[in-house]
Amino acid sequence: MSSVMGKNIKLSVFGESHGEAIGCVIDGFPSGVKLDFDKINMQMQRRAPGKDRTSTARKEGDEPHILSGVLKGVTTGAPISMIIENTNVHSGDYGNLSAVPRPGHSDYPAYVKYGGHNDIRGGGHFSGRLTAPLVFAGALARQVLEKKGIKIGAHISRIGNVCDESFDKCNIADELLECLAADSFATISTDKEMQMRAVIEDARLMGDSVGGEIECAAVGLPVGLCSNMFDTAESRLSSALFAIPAVKGVQFGAGFDFARMYGSEANDGYEIRNGKVSLISNNNGGILGGMTDGAPIVFSVAIKPTPSISVPQRSINLQTMENETLTVRGRHDPCIVPRAVSVVEAVTAFVLLDMIM
Amino acid sequence: MSSVMGKNIKLSVFGESHGEAIGCVIDGFPSGVKLDFDKINMQMQRRAPGKDRTSTARKEGDEPHILSGVLKGVTTGAPISMIIENTNVHSGDYGNLSAVPRPGHSDYPAYVKYGGHNDIRGGGHFSGRLTAPLVFAGALARQVLEKKGIKIGAHISRIGNVCDESFDKCNIADELLECLAADSFATISTDKEMQMRAVIEDARLMGDSVGGEIECAAVGLPVGLCSNMFDTAESRLSSALFAIPAVKGVQFGAGFDFARMYGSEANDGYEIRNGKVSLISNNNGGILGGMTDGAPIVFSVAIKPTPSISVPQRSINLQTMENETLTVRGRHDPCIVPRAVSVVEAVTAFVLLDMIM
Amino acid sequence: MSSVMGKNIKLSVFGESHGEAIGCVIDGFPSGVKLDFDKINMQMQRRAPGKDRTSTARKEGDEPHILSGVLKGVTTGAPISMIIENTNVHSGDYGNLSAVPRPGHSDYPAYVKYGGHNDIRGGGHFSGRLTAPLVFAGALARQVLEKKGIKIGAHISRIGNVCDESFDKCNIADELLECLAADSFATISTDKEMQMRAVIEDARLMGDSVGGEIECAAVGLPVGLCSNMFDTAESRLSSALFAIPAVKGVQFGAGFDFARMYGSEANDGYEIRNGKVSLISNNNGGILGGMTDGAPIVFSVAIKPTPSISVPQRSINLQTMENETLTVRGRHDPCIVPRAVSVVEAVTAFVLLDMIM
Amino acid sequence: MSSVMGKNIKLSVFGESHGEAIGCVIDGFPSGVKLDFDKINMQMQRRAPGKDRTSTARKEGDEPHILSGVLKGVTTGAPISMIIENTNVHSGDYGNLSAVPRPGHSDYPAYVKYGGHNDIRGGGHFSGRLTAPLVFAGALARQVLEKKGIKIGAHISRIGNVCDESFDKCNIADELLECLAADSFATISTDKEMQMRAVIEDARLMGDSVGGEIECAAVGLPVGLCSNMFDTAESRLSSALFAIPAVKGVQFGAGFDFARMYGSEANDGYEIRNGKVSLISNNNGGILGGMTDGAPIVFSVAIKPTPSISVPQRSINLQTMENETLTVRGRHDPCIVPRAVSVVEAVTAFVLLDMIM
Repeated sequence: MSSVMGKNIKLSVFGESHGEAIGCVIDGFPSGVKLDFDKINMQMQRRAPGKDRTSTARKEGDEPHILSGVLKGVTTGAPISMIIENTNVHSGDYGNLSAVPRPGHSDYPAYVKYGGHNDIRGGGHFSGRLTAPLVFAGALARQVLEKKGIKIGAHISRIGNVCDESFDKCNIADELLECLAADSFATISTDKEMQMRAVIEDARLMGDSVGGEIECAAVGLPVGLCSNMFDTAESRLSSALFAIPAVKGVQFGAGFDFARMYGSEANDGYEIRNGKVSLISNNNGGILGGMTDGAPIVFSVAIKPTPSISVPQRSINLQTMENETLTVRGRHDPCIVPRAVSVVEAVTAFVLLDMIM
Repeated sequence: MSSVMGKNIKLSVFGESHGEAIGCVIDGFPSGVKLDFDKINMQMQRRAPGKDRTSTARKEGDEPHILSGVLKGVTTGAPISMIIENTNVHSGDYGNLSAVPRPGHSDYPAYVKYGGHNDIRGGGHFSGRLTAPLVFAGALARQVLEKKGIKIGAHISRIGNVCDESFDKCNIADELLECLAADSFATISTDKEMQMRAVIEDARLMGDSVGGEIECAAVGLPVGLCSNMFDTAESRLSSALFAIPAVKGVQFGAGFDFARMYGSEANDGYEIRNGKVSLISNNNGGILGGMTDGAPIVFSVAIKPTPSISVPQRSINLQTMENETLTVRGRHDPCIVPRAVSVVEAVTAFVLLDMIM
Repeated sequence: MSSVMGKNIKLSVFGESHGEAIGCVIDGFPSGVKLDFDKINMQMQRRAPGKDRTSTARKEGDEPHILSGVLKGVTTGAPISMIIENTNVHSGDYGNLSAVPRPGHSDYPAYVKYGGHNDIRGGGHFSGRLTAPLVFAGALARQVLEKKGIKIGAHISRIGNVCDESFDKCNIADELLECLAADSFATISTDKEMQMRAVIEDARLMGDSVGGEIECAAVGLPVGLCSNMFDTAESRLSSALFAIPAVKGVQFGAGFDFARMYGSEANDGYEIRNGKVSLISNNNGGILGGMTDGAPIVFSVAIKPTPSISVPQRSINLQTMENETLTVRGRHDPCIVPRAVSVVEAVTAFVLLDMIM
Repeated sequence: MSSVMGKNIKLSVFGESHGEAIGCVIDGFPSGVKLDFDKINMQMQRRAPGKDRTSTARKEGDEPHILSGVLKGVTTGAPISMIIENTNVHSGDYGNLSAVPRPGHSDYPAYVKYGGHNDIRGGGHFSGRLTAPLVFAGALARQVLEKKGIKIGAHISRIGNVCDESFDKCNIADELLECLAADSFATISTDKEMQMRAVIEDARLMGDSVGGEIECAAVGLPVGLCSNMFDTAESRLSSALFAIPAVKGVQFGAGFDFARMYGSEANDGYEIRNGKVSLISNNNGGILGGMTDGAPIVFSVAIKPTPSISVPQRSINLQTMENETLTVRGRHDPCIVPRAVSVVEAVTAFVLLDMIM
């Protein structure tokens, strides 16, 4: 496995869903940053499960316990290590899964790759639970970014066939991002939240799950970060975003809509506004030639439906090599998208901090 | 800039559109590979401009000249260096561009980042011409992959509103991929080629350009390549694909369509077929938990319309800081998508070789 | 800071001497390895302080507590995380050190680099105590290497003016290495141990410290590991060895003695022995052109005297910017060399495992 | 092979001794640097062979030809690529070497590693000739460093039994370093040059070769560069220095002499001098805890005797697997040390530039 990411700051994530603890080490974080633990815990809670019926019934305190790198609440420059104890573990729920891979999960390729030695309880190291340390790392990164005037916020742009309104890519207020970044079911339009919740509840009642999209924005970045060819802002962000389980697509600005456009509509013109260079439109999502161009960074990610569903599915038995019908038990999210919003923001924060250092 | 990519094999790309030469160094390529130069040149020609009216009128021989790493046609294990001389250069065409950034191009952030020192003639190092060394590197990688039974092919899946039929993700014949990988305007349906060409010709006549999508597949990979969390197959592929100029979106398998799906439709079940584990569907595009699962890798990329268009556009003058109307002269592609097919395949080949080494 | 090392296996080390815990994360360790915890603890004990008068009086259990990556004693392929709680901490001993840098320590550059935010208690993250996780990582690596027939052992080759006999570089028995690798004061000649202990005891009684050299060997490696130019075996080993606090020199084979030699004495000839290619001598320490050549890898490292001594030293006060005489209190090793032997072996084991993966 | 080095600036070296050309690509070099080509050529000439009897009779112009990254003499920020054509090639001299490995050379492990496919003419990619691109890269790096007040110089500190005087580690004048950095046989004491030349001439007349040591210094660096644990200044410098063929040892400051010292002599005290923190001695060679401490960086490297000698040597035939006596023909350096001085300086300059970026 490779659970280490980053160039100037390195994040190493460890732990298994049903092991003793999960956690991370952040290496290269700047010294002298006074941490706001309330803000960290607020982000941890946005991701934490068990808040309502849109998520798994598993309840976890998800309290990060810092072991090193912080002295009297201030970062020292040494690696910051953090653990979260796993408290609410029902390993028994997963007893029959070892030989029968769950469709849509990592079970089958992991079985081949690790020779059957990987911890399959609750998905082990592949579990979505491992996004908790990502949120922690992102919460720290965000505190440095905010001091530099950089804000990040994301919202649920689609669940099934219900779409939220999109960001006005050229004109995104700090307040909107702050508001989204504190919301546990983040949408721009409050009407849409109700409709989305209904879609999720329907899926839950059917023992099924549903997918969605998340749109994320970052404002306040300087012009000229990153570079072509192989170190583009798109390369660095997408590489990290695809580390989030269930992300299967990433698009910047107009993204796949570009395929339908003419250059004359797609190109973002320039004008001088208040004595400064400004973009008239932002189809490129704040990135040109791989570099930030001063407009907000805007991208969206596709999230597949949670693969753990209780409806019977076709699978096989890897030991007997016979077909088998699988019914997955255990507590699962009918839709992971609401909880993934904070994870997308966190990964974005970490990558942006790595870029500006 | 960072024009170096790769983990086990490293690719370093250099050169400017209107400089003396462009080229690359491939470090870590296996020794003892007898190169088929006809196949290399065939790939170079697929990307090369000037073949018909869908592309720029600039003609380049694009003949790769190998300086090292190959002895009597066989790789030695030492770094393979290659240069392509720039022969057909009209620098005068770009005279007025230095202070007036072209919309949709890297000009403005590059000006800020490099303090005005970057070579802007023809886009300099940011030019699409720099994809020629990528195609060379990919052509070499492909020869190693083919010996291992791995085939790669891509097609134009959309130009404007014209869509080609999609891959049957579960069942992609080697012959289809071979056929696409030799085509200079690669589509699955020949009818669609005519319609797409018409859309491009329309754009050309208007002095405009048009975007599109490319769908790519790779078959024959072993199960269990790559890993979660940060070294997923999606991370590695997307990171490299976003290095191709104009790529603004990458999606794997069902990609953004997952947002509309239920888990019960999205999950790919398993069955035993001919004594082997097989996937019943392939919505995940051959990748589960970041690892290859034995099904074909299938993904698509969004390509934005070529930003160089001859219709007048709103821009600014970076020296006078006043608004200015820009009309871009020079020879340009009304649609880069047909030529980008070989580039997408090449980048995929390079990344896959890096994965299996 | 950068406390992450490795290419195919990554080691991330964290913690401070007087913090809550120290530990590490090992990412990319092979799955399916049944760990021998007795062997791990034996290596931890070789490094642990407080055994006799050659080392600091600080006693630490140094019991590694594994949090993840191991299930029922077998590695799973997921990141292995481990913590060691700090139990025997006398922070009061270090009270006066914050403004007065200790000569020979990292205090002064760390103060400048981290703006005074670094944890200075006991050296913080710079403490030699952070070598405990290195020994843990090395102990795990060693178990994989041993299954492949690779053995590593080191001995104290010099303390002050007392020298142990050197390895017979061409002919190093597995048994000798095993014996050294289990010794807490490893020398080839038992006579020399007594003399070295006397030198250390003299230094201790004077409140002073003394330096030394460690010679390390590894046998059983295949021919052709690593490569020129920048990925030489010497580069990879030296880069990691200089991470051990107090190491100030690394030499391979004849090392600095080469400066006095003629090519005709220095060159290692070949002969066929038992049908196999063998080296007649091993001045190159098992490495030619940066690659392993089949002979034992042999190198030595210089260890400077422990900078913490109780004799008064000239220093300054960084706040008043005035000269000051410093007397360092606290428990210190009069000679770190005996304990460093296991650290040198551990780092070597980790790097060699990274090379062969 | 891995012929790519660097973190923030990347250097990729290519070519073979008897191929068409050698060269390099420097990626990430700052934009806007006006290059002084006279200074570049001066460094190239210091390394170039054929100047006198201390070196091989092979004469090479060694004129670097820049292909990209430089416009009107000023760096653009794009990758700088450079080639040197190989003009004076006598491949016939090496005809009998393919099956009979030369002692002390990379021939045998390279044969095993590359399956006999590597170019063995003149050592191929393993040739000392490949240090010419290193000198080029270093010459560019030096020009950036000099603008920041950083100077680098080295001298031959030993040839056989003749030693030059050492640097006064605490007090190294810019003028001395400038003088050494322009010298083709750099010594501090001019008397010693004559004695060293005599030792080399003796070796040449015997058809033998002789080793030596080079001591290098850098002044003007800020305090706090690099960090513990794994990114120490010693780690980064040693890793790059061991890429120079024939380097077999690296020591910083007192280096191996530390083994004989007591802490009370070894520790470098502090004093306030002219209102600034100063070190009273510099046994640590300007590096404490892996970080620069403001004193000059001082280190020395051991250079083994050139392995190519004309006296008969014991070898084997890899095809017949029989013992064979080898007499190496061709033009060789009786001592590589004088030419290696500029290479050591160049590698140091490149690494220091990478550190401060």
